Amino acid sequence: MVEQHVIDTLRDTFELHGFSGIETRAVEPVERLLAKGETSKEIYLLRRLQDKSGSDSDLGLHFDLTVPLARYVLENSGHLMFPFRRYQIQKVWRGERPQDGRFREFLQADVDVVGQDTLAFHHEVELPLVMVDALGKLPIPRVRIKASNRKVAQGFYEAIGIEDVDETLRIMDKLDKVGPKAITEMLADGVGATGEQARLALELANISGDDAEVADRVLALGYRSDLLDEGLSELVALVEGANELIPGFLSADLRIARGLDYYTGSVYESVFEGHEDLGSVCSGGRYDSLVSDGKKTYPGVGLSIGVSRIIARVLGQGMLTPSRSVPTAVLVAVNDEGERRHAERIALKLRGRGIPTEVSPNSAKFGKQIRYADRRGIPFVWFSADDGEQVKDIRSGDQEAADPDTWMPPAEDVRVEIRGSDE
Amino acid sequence: MVEQHVIDTLRDTFELHGFSGIETRAVEPVERLLAKGETSKEIYLLRRLQDKSGSDSDLGLHFDLTVPLARYVLENSGHLMFPFRRYQIQKVWRGERPQDGRFREFLQADVDVVGQDTLAFHHEVELPLVMVDALGKLPIPRVRIKASNRKVAQGFYEAIGIEDVDETLRIMDKLDKVGPKAITEMLADGVGATGEQARLALELANISGDDAEVADRVLALGYRSDLLDEGLSELVALVEGANELIPGFLSADLRIARGLDYYTGSVYESVFEGHEDLGSVCSGGRYDSLVSDGKKTYPGVGLSIGVSRIIARVLGQGMLTPSRSVPTAVLVAVNDEGERRHAERIALKLRGRGIPTEVSPNSAKFGKQIRYADRRGIPFVWFSADDGEQVKDIRSGDQEAADPDTWMPPAEDVRVEIRGSDE
Repeated sequence: MVEQHVIDTLRDTFELHGFSGIETRAVEPVERLLAKGETSKEIYLLRRLQDKSGSDSDLGLHFDLTVPLARYVLENSGHLMFPFRRYQIQKVWRGERPQDGRFREFLQADVDVVGQDTLAFHHEVELPLVMVDALGKLPIPRVRIKASNRKVAQGFYEAIGIEDVDETLRIMDKLDKVGPKAITEMLADGVGATGEQARLALELANISGDDAEVADRVLALGYRSDLLDEGLSELVALVEGANELIPGFLSADLRIARGLDYYTGSVYESVFEGHEDLGSVCSGGRYDSLVSDGKKTYPGVGLSIGVSRIIARVLGQGMLTPSRSVPTAVLVAVNDEGERRHAERIALKLRGRGIPTEVSPNSAKFGKQIRYADRRGIPFVWFSADDGEQVKDIRSGDQEAADPDTWMPPAEDVRVEIRGSDE
Repeated sequence: MVEQHVIDTLRDTFELHGFSGIETRAVEPVERLLAKGETSKEIYLLRRLQDKSGSDSDLGLHFDLTVPLARYVLENSGHLMFPFRRYQIQKVWRGERPQDGRFREFLQADVDVVGQDTLAFHHEVELPLVMVDALGKLPIPRVRIKASNRKVAQGFYEAIGIEDVDETLRIMDKLDKVGPKAITEMLADGVGATGEQARLALELANISGDDAEVADRVLALGYRSDLLDEGLSELVALVEGANELIPGFLSADLRIARGLDYYTGSVYESVFEGHEDLGSVCSGGRYDSLVSDGKKTYPGVGLSIGVSRIIARVLGQGMLTPSRSVPTAVLVAVNDEGERRHAERIALKLRGRGIPTEVSPNSAKFGKQIRYADRRGIPFVWFSADDGEQVKDIRSGDQEAADPDTWMPPAEDVRVEIRGSDE
């Protein structure tokens, strides 16, 4: 119930922002899955049991929702309006070692805007705001998005004379894990960086902030290039634009290196305040070519929420709980099996007015039926007494005469409500 | 949008009837998938690409939601209240040849009630009513459920001296396809039936009806047994009980043979009125042992809706259509890029009051932004004129001054509505 509530909230918010939901099949051609280049992704291949050749099909389960989006855009480009705004909430599969917050089957919620040949920068400000709006509607910890920009990293590394930008990024991604001393050695070994180049790369990684001062601090390191200028102007526009609309949720953090090897502009990571150990709960970025058909190129910007990772933490720490354990609001008691039809008619009337109702599965003694409702978490028991229809709130013991055509439980008891831990 | 509406309607109805939603992983151990005995089901096996041994994992994609339910009940029996009421709406996969209404990946919506050791017969009346209620809330053709009972078939065949009941059922299942003459020959070859036995089996298959007369007509064939009597009394109780609560949707049809080889009591098939060619859209039955752990047995009764099959027909014939093609109700125009932030603030206010809104992706001429909205199917365009904020219904051309803190579109335009073809 909690997961469904989270999904419904995300879906509703994405639609409020004008994103259309799509769903794609679970499988993609293996060659398309492998084309994304992240060979570390463990793909599950499919084979039909009754295919006696024993050979694999050329299909695998998708490991993200970006590969399917790329195929979808290519296959439907003639029918889509660009920029195409889509959300997609589906299971994905990765054959990784399961651990806390990492599953082999998990749910992702993606939003992307995809353009045809061009895509305006302002979508790079828009998209993280959509995610913050969506997650902000749930009584869970505040999400904080950290952003960087490929052009800043590449522009800076090139300006200080480092040539292998992608390898530098892969090394810098390990900074939190191995520390600056090891990074300096790895940069020397990996990309031939001098001690001064390594020092500058580490200085860059220490810069963060939520206004234009970030750019000043980068420029204060004493290097410049057109690409670096372009990246800094985008990064400042992102940080300032985002904070103007929803203050305090997005900051620049030049320590981010993950994803910069395939994103081409803004890149986003995010954490839940107080749950930094969980890792990024929502990430993404800008790609100048999500896909291309040789004639046209489809640039995009998007973010993906790791729904299962969030749900695991939310449930594990009881941050969200359902107001009861079953959808049923009312159990209609059955005095004896001969009166079951009467009870079913009462239930029909209550359901017709939107009250979740079930009929007692047996006609045991009344006390037993009350205990059944209690153990299932059903708040009301309806019963037919000699003096007419009655309904009992088994939490308080209050009992009243009731008409199945008009009686309503209190508004908060009609449907299961999902509540935050402090509600 | 149509599919999501169908899913939401089913989910809502199942919860109104007090069923809890569960979700299970896409995979099950292959041996569990094969245990159901229907070897004709084409299972997809999984193998990890990076598993260099080249051997299959022992996992396959589930081909229905009953196998996962059985495992779920067994694994969680200590935590569940029985009878356990669950619904489950998930994708399933079968490696069959795709054809009209049959897909390799498709969506099923199941409801089941599972007991521990015992399960009262009245659930066999309850469950088809849940499905009729759910499908009846959609403006699609009326569903008609046809029911039979394993005990009637077995009791009758045994009473007339046929021993191999399961093989007889498999042969009778082909009646519509091959006709009575071929069935007579197949019964002689397959179970050694005499001409008279075949005649009686065919007579039984011709009996249908929606009241107690069905039992009379079976008994008029001149054979009786305790099992047959029990089956007939259940069948009549089902038909009469169902029609008393929701008249005219369920009838007995002793031609049904499919499923009788694994169901043990009532069995249900169903068609959409006027769409009989589509085949069964909702089927199921009673099983005395869904699963057993050696100590306890878990009987159940359930039905499964072939959601994808229904959706394919509904979309193919335009029975349900969305009121517009995108979730967006309002496009906020942008006069020039310098005013984009102003447009975003307007959008923020409208969304805050539940109105799906997007900001124009560009600041092209106003006429071009109107055309963009029109082609996307967005009914309203918001713009800032010299004399203040304005909103234009681009369908009628009507235009009015509007305050982003109070303006509302007509109720039917706020969210996408799914409408029947005659609405």
